Amino acid sequence: MQFLSDNAAGVTRKIMDAVVEASQGTSFPYGADLETKRAEEMLRRVFECDLSAWLVATGTAANGLALGAATTACGAIFCHERAHVMCDECGAPEMFTGGSKLVGVAGKRGKVSVAALNERLAILKAAPGRHPRPSVLSLAQANEFGAVYTVSEMAALAARAHAEDMIVHLDGARFANAVVAFDKAPAELSWKAGVDIMSFGVSKNGGMACEAVIFFDQKLAREFHLQRKRAGHSIAKGRFLGAQMRAYLDQGHWLESAARANRQAARLAAGLAKTPGARLPWAPESNLVFAIINRRLDQMLRESGGQYYEWPHDGLGCSLTPDEVFVRFATSFATTADEVDRFIAIARARSPARAPRHVKWRENRASA
Amino acid sequence: MQFLSDNAAGVTRKIMDAVVEASQGTSFPYGADLETKRAEEMLRRVFECDLSAWLVATGTAANGLALGAATTACGAIFCHERAHVMCDECGAPEMFTGGSKLVGVAGKRGKVSVAALNERLAILKAAPGRHPRPSVLSLAQANEFGAVYTVSEMAALAARAHAEDMIVHLDGARFANAVVAFDKAPAELSWKAGVDIMSFGVSKNGGMACEAVIFFDQKLAREFHLQRKRAGHSIAKGRFLGAQMRAYLDQGHWLESAARANRQAARLAAGLAKTPGARLPWAPESNLVFAIINRRLDQMLRESGGQYYEWPHDGLGCSLTPDEVFVRFATSFATTADEVDRFIAIARARSPARAPRHVKWRENRASA
Amino acid sequence: MQFLSDNAAGVTRKIMDAVVEASQGTSFPYGADLETKRAEEMLRRVFECDLSAWLVATGTAANGLALGAATTACGAIFCHERAHVMCDECGAPEMFTGGSKLVGVAGKRGKVSVAALNERLAILKAAPGRHPRPSVLSLAQANEFGAVYTVSEMAALAARAHAEDMIVHLDGARFANAVVAFDKAPAELSWKAGVDIMSFGVSKNGGMACEAVIFFDQKLAREFHLQRKRAGHSIAKGRFLGAQMRAYLDQGHWLESAARANRQAARLAAGLAKTPGARLPWAPESNLVFAIINRRLDQMLRESGGQYYEWPHDGLGCSLTPDEVFVRFATSFATTADEVDRFIAIARARSPARAPRHVKWRENRASA
Amino acid sequence: MQFLSDNAAGVTRKIMDAVVEASQGTSFPYGADLETKRAEEMLRRVFECDLSAWLVATGTAANGLALGAATTACGAIFCHERAHVMCDECGAPEMFTGGSKLVGVAGKRGKVSVAALNERLAILKAAPGRHPRPSVLSLAQANEFGAVYTVSEMAALAARAHAEDMIVHLDGARFANAVVAFDKAPAELSWKAGVDIMSFGVSKNGGMACEAVIFFDQKLAREFHLQRKRAGHSIAKGRFLGAQMRAYLDQGHWLESAARANRQAARLAAGLAKTPGARLPWAPESNLVFAIINRRLDQMLRESGGQYYEWPHDGLGCSLTPDEVFVRFATSFATTADEVDRFIAIARARSPARAPRHVKWRENRASA
Repeated sequence: MQFLSDNAAGVTRKIMDAVVEASQGTSFPYGADLETKRAEEMLRRVFECDLSAWLVATGTAANGLALGAATTACGAIFCHERAHVMCDECGAPEMFTGGSKLVGVAGKRGKVSVAALNERLAILKAAPGRHPRPSVLSLAQANEFGAVYTVSEMAALAARAHAEDMIVHLDGARFANAVVAFDKAPAELSWKAGVDIMSFGVSKNGGMACEAVIFFDQKLAREFHLQRKRAGHSIAKGRFLGAQMRAYLDQGHWLESAARANRQAARLAAGLAKTPGARLPWAPESNLVFAIINRRLDQMLRESGGQYYEWPHDGLGCSLTPDEVFVRFATSFATTADEVDRFIAIARARSPARAPRHVKWRENRASA
Repeated sequence: MQFLSDNAAGVTRKIMDAVVEASQGTSFPYGADLETKRAEEMLRRVFECDLSAWLVATGTAANGLALGAATTACGAIFCHERAHVMCDECGAPEMFTGGSKLVGVAGKRGKVSVAALNERLAILKAAPGRHPRPSVLSLAQANEFGAVYTVSEMAALAARAHAEDMIVHLDGARFANAVVAFDKAPAELSWKAGVDIMSFGVSKNGGMACEAVIFFDQKLAREFHLQRKRAGHSIAKGRFLGAQMRAYLDQGHWLESAARANRQAARLAAGLAKTPGARLPWAPESNLVFAIINRRLDQMLRESGGQYYEWPHDGLGCSLTPDEVFVRFATSFATTADEVDRFIAIARARSPARAPRHVKWRENRASA
Repeated sequence: MQFLSDNAAGVTRKIMDAVVEASQGTSFPYGADLETKRAEEMLRRVFECDLSAWLVATGTAANGLALGAATTACGAIFCHERAHVMCDECGAPEMFTGGSKLVGVAGKRGKVSVAALNERLAILKAAPGRHPRPSVLSLAQANEFGAVYTVSEMAALAARAHAEDMIVHLDGARFANAVVAFDKAPAELSWKAGVDIMSFGVSKNGGMACEAVIFFDQKLAREFHLQRKRAGHSIAKGRFLGAQMRAYLDQGHWLESAARANRQAARLAAGLAKTPGARLPWAPESNLVFAIINRRLDQMLRESGGQYYEWPHDGLGCSLTPDEVFVRFATSFATTADEVDRFIAIARARSPARAPRHVKWRENRASA
Repeated sequence: MQFLSDNAAGVTRKIMDAVVEASQGTSFPYGADLETKRAEEMLRRVFECDLSAWLVATGTAANGLALGAATTACGAIFCHERAHVMCDECGAPEMFTGGSKLVGVAGKRGKVSVAALNERLAILKAAPGRHPRPSVLSLAQANEFGAVYTVSEMAALAARAHAEDMIVHLDGARFANAVVAFDKAPAELSWKAGVDIMSFGVSKNGGMACEAVIFFDQKLAREFHLQRKRAGHSIAKGRFLGAQMRAYLDQGHWLESAARANRQAARLAAGLAKTPGARLPWAPESNLVFAIINRRLDQMLRESGGQYYEWPHDGLGCSLTPDEVFVRFATSFATTADEVDRFIAIARARSPARAPRHVKWRENRASA
């Protein structure tokens, strides 16, 4: 009953086999290998367009490098005020851009609203010499709160950004979960909706350590081989990234894994919705389920072996009583229906009487 | 009737004379001159303590360098969400710190509230591996909204910061105005209230181009001579900074200049408060007056030669009707009672009937 | 007959097995897993001391992060003028330190000489306000030219650096090869010789993608968890780094792999030394062999399937005739005696008569 | 008898008068004032072309900002190995570029040689993924060793740089001295010879604190207003920079000042050349004179009130006996023939017999 993080899961058999296979023999280092070439080719097929793709080992690197390619230090990056790039990367975007400013934009369920974006833009544009230049709009699909942008929402936001001569970046650490949620072609949810550059995740969806930075606007990639290298993100034995990506994309493996995760998230949400002492602030659209549960229930679940994080709820518009906690459940390719059912069954049993003593998520340095 | 900015005023006679006097003869460059030594000595007397002081030419440099000395790139700087370091320096703090994160804290009239600070601290501390380390609290005295912190307010904020092992920085671009407002010793409003490092302004209060970075905590200055040099802020003919500072501090000249500015601000505010079509969101405590005025009045004032900026009012809790604008008036040592009285007299005359066509502050690249 | 790079080799069976084993089940992300804990514990045993160790995926990251922990942007890093950190990391040290200056020091075979170090130090110290502060001495063991520092050489250099209050960094991307070369305890070649912080390599010696930043001086690690995270070098599924390191260190596996590489390098060097048309500028001490060979021989070797890089020889004191090329051969755990012998046999056969047309190392983007 | 630095001199009467005049009344801040507009207009006339000019207070800022506008962090800046940007700015170019790499190029008397440039370029281009991209060639005119590039030398270097798609930067801190030396139009020595961007100095030649960054290639200035602001180099009361520049350029004042300095340098050099115990490594072409003098003479000159710096001579190809020191003399607009003649007269008098005890230039933090 592990719902801590999709990063807490292991690696799919198929991806692991590809890595083992890649471990034999000789190949050119630093991404000049055949596995990497094949992975790049597959990305072009999956996205149905020409593109420039670069493999790295972490999502923070993918986002940081993408933003660093999209803006100079004098630019401002607009993102949701609770976005991963804003809150969970310890200043990586600032490092990779040489110190550009991240501007938080409000919006429900972690989604940037056009109105709030306009408001923020107006302020920066009002004093052009005192503010950085608006240069990037960064959206996450699916986002940190389990929500997805519809194609038309994305297109509207991208159009607004492009009208300001801004670049549109997509944090696709959980892009597979969004593709599955909509059953749309990847192209529809990315470049056709106005995305110029994206981080495309593998790690959270059954990979070992692999993400791609994908440039639909290939002009932006002009110095990227240097930017990746000087950040220490050019992996010597690059074939291991190539192998992961190749297996991931092969025959829809990535979508199967994401579908499994989304399915269990929906099952978990449905169960919690009917559980006394638990309520859902919103319906999950991908593989993350948020719930407001009372402390007794929380305590009982943890004592029964449930693993999940308490989560900050500032800026989300949820009001909790002192008896309640805000929690996050993440499912992955490895989550089973049985695991979910056992968890829900325990949740529905009577809760114990003594005072709660739950372990907060902050109590170890792990994160999500 | 110029109320655009204290930066739009010239230089006091006394300071100009000192600069001219300093222009003769030979002296050691890069701050090794006698004028600079004397200025440093005078700062020690004014602040009644040992300290390490470094002269630079701009307020943005003073703040940026001070913050760069106070934190590494992995630190977070807490400041008011509308602070000068947050909104008006085009990312200078990010540049000088190598990309640390500025965290906006709410609070009325531009003053950081302890409650809001605690809330923000709690969020960062909740996820230590994902967030930068809380490292600096930056306050402005007087601040961008004409308000001042009382000694006990400052001490409480500083104590909170020190309890978290944070450095307390004071943006004193308008420190003279605060000292005059309270009639307190500079020491009371700075190191005795817990300030570790401050930017001490001359330029806005009748100087030409001079500010000091003052280290009360001299450990923080260990590399400052290098930090200033590599930022291009070590002036070759340093005597001209020394001469300005020396004249500024000599025989209370700085406080006289600030007193004149504060006095005219109060006069202007009193006049506006009684003017139909104008209202004050708060009483001014230093040399900045904010007002909400109707568009007709605004138009008439501008057509009659009044110069002042329209100002963004987001996050300040003011509600305006569509017929109103939010404006800022800045007074300086050079503002005269006559100038204020003429302005108020015009404001009280009947306003014209045709549609307003005022010039917004954004329409030139000047700022404040 | 692949001698391009130790990075062109695959992964040892033992390390691959550990990775596969680690791919099952759930674990805490971002280095809070048990594999990582065990790896850290093993490093303490191998180095016979308490230490703080952090796993990352690349050597450039390990060096960059280590240097970033060792100096501020106002510091100067002294290293050999042909060191990897100087010439092969595309400015990574500059990025990770926020722009500190690398100062090249001369010395034979890529080894920093004390005399040359003293000369450089004297220049920087002569003008303290115009130069960065000497802050780090970075040595490589074994270095890019196949040479090793004796314990007393290292101790002398470290003592000189410490006398200047500088930190001593060791680039140990090929540390295993040096340990094997001397048959000394790792502790003797590191902290006992004055090293404060080191990059400890796995990748080049049969790993997949793993290096450790090791702090013998643990004060320097104060912010390292943040520095690693904001650089995107905190791997979500950290167990895969832990598993590699654990298997690498287990029962001397690392030393066996390095011994195999060194042995084949010696075999190759011995063979080349006796080959007409080839000469060695120096005897190899680790797994890198440099040779000066005539163009005909070079062409024939490449046409016969030999793979190796032409290498820049500036600053190495080698003089070549126009008919000669400077080349590098790298051996690895996977190099076989048979492969070496076949290569030497070809080299000793008669060379062809027509004009050479060899492929230069620069002709693909791969590097070493 | 002050020959320490052109920065040790004061300000010309004409420039000081302009500053005083500018101190009255109101004007738009941050460079939106009329003085600045007029200065920009005059620079266009002086250089006989359209250009974009930005005033700052220091030469290090001008160079740093210019280089920051000319290259990204992934670029390499080629300059003489003893250039001011390399050796005397404490890492400012690294800071302003976000960490690009400075590559030192050899050449006599501080002048970059085409052959040495080609050699360095070849190395960087040989390994494109491991090295930064060659992006800027930075030359100084006149340079730190009193030498000047002829128009054809500059054109040849610029052509070589442009062939590599590099930007040509000119450090013109002493540009006036070069213009006077050649009696050529400023345009001939700058954009007509291939310069894209230059730092144009006022401070060293009788100014107070003023330099301009001039963009002949105006595309490079796209973000410069932001780059200058975030570096703290946008002066609030910008009129004081404008006033200095305007007076400087008015009616050839800048050339008169430089001519006076050059003339006294020639007079000093001629005198030293005939002085026993002194020899010139090369003839001065601008306002800097270098000499090799014996220690007795050096001591006597200092004891007699002569002020000048001992100077590092590494990399300059001068060989000194242990009895000799390498020294620099700088003249300025304020140096008089009488001062020079007195100095030479003393030098030619008999030297004292006791052991020398001269003050080295390193013994205070002043620099040049």
